[in-house]
Amino acid sequence: MIPIVSIVGKSNSGKTTLIEKLIAELMQRGWRVATIKHNLHGFEIDHEGKDSWRHKKAGAVTTVLASPHRVAVIEDVDTDYELAEIRERYIRNADIILAEGYKGNPHPKIELFRSELRQERLCGPEDNLIALAFDRPVSAEVPCFNRDDSAGIADLIEERFLLPKRD
Amino acid sequence: MIPIVSIVGKSNSGKTTLIEKLIAELMQRGWRVATIKHNLHGFEIDHEGKDSWRHKKAGAVTTVLASPHRVAVIEDVDTDYELAEIRERYIRNADIILAEGYKGNPHPKIELFRSELRQERLCGPEDNLIALAFDRPVSAEVPCFNRDDSAGIADLIEERFLLPKRD
Repeated sequence: MIPIVSIVGKSNSGKTTLIEKLIAELMQRGWRVATIKHNLHGFEIDHEGKDSWRHKKAGAVTTVLASPHRVAVIEDVDTDYELAEIRERYIRNADIILAEGYKGNPHPKIELFRSELRQERLCGPEDNLIALAFDRPVSAEVPCFNRDDSAGIADLIEERFLLPKRD
Repeated sequence: MIPIVSIVGKSNSGKTTLIEKLIAELMQRGWRVATIKHNLHGFEIDHEGKDSWRHKKAGAVTTVLASPHRVAVIEDVDTDYELAEIRERYIRNADIILAEGYKGNPHPKIELFRSELRQERLCGPEDNLIALAFDRPVSAEVPCFNRDDSAGIADLIEERFLLPKRD
């Protein structure tokens, strides 16, 4: 089973930026990273007027756009799948999955925090929190990283979830 | 196995428009239609700057964008999958698959033809051609339909591929 690590934090806490950096860092080390982005309010994808867009717009339940190097699938579903279900149904070629935008999931979590937003933290150890990414030093019950320290956070992910599987 | 019907024809022959009409016609009759669009030269999808776009751009091998009613998956692949492989890997919730842009596949085909383009036909019966969609009456070895007769073409698809499975 591909391990899932969830990046959590309030709006504008920098989740996508951290995920971008972690992808680059883990790729450099030879790992294949998949990502899951949740959007409770739905989303638009594809470009208006393109053939695949027209297929889906006309009512196709699933539209697949295929090329020799990339495949895209847009599928109607009738449920808000949990992360483990998404992993099972849609992801097969990755070593690790980074998830953005899921709350209340049971998977290991890294919380991003910006002190200037004066926010409460979202997660504690009971939420399977494994690290905090902060903009200033803090003391906490889990490892804390500077939010720009993507190498350090990648070390943690590697040690906890990737290297043990390789052994 | 979900039946596949391939809509073939030269550029600007109206393949996407016919597929749109067939989707609407078949949906009205209660069938779930999936589509596959092939693009040999690759494609762009998603909108620049969106979180999912940033994940994929940063190097994720697979990015899943999930919502309660729709899921999109963008996946790197290392081969130009054939239609049957795409059906097996990516499509599960449909009664019929309409494919656009595949040449030389073994599946049943409907060829679109515009007489004003003075083109040669692409397919004969040896290509598993099951119908022609023409802009003027022609005589041919397979059933011919007016290109606007999406109801008639849907009848053919239903009779050949959908109703027998229901019985």
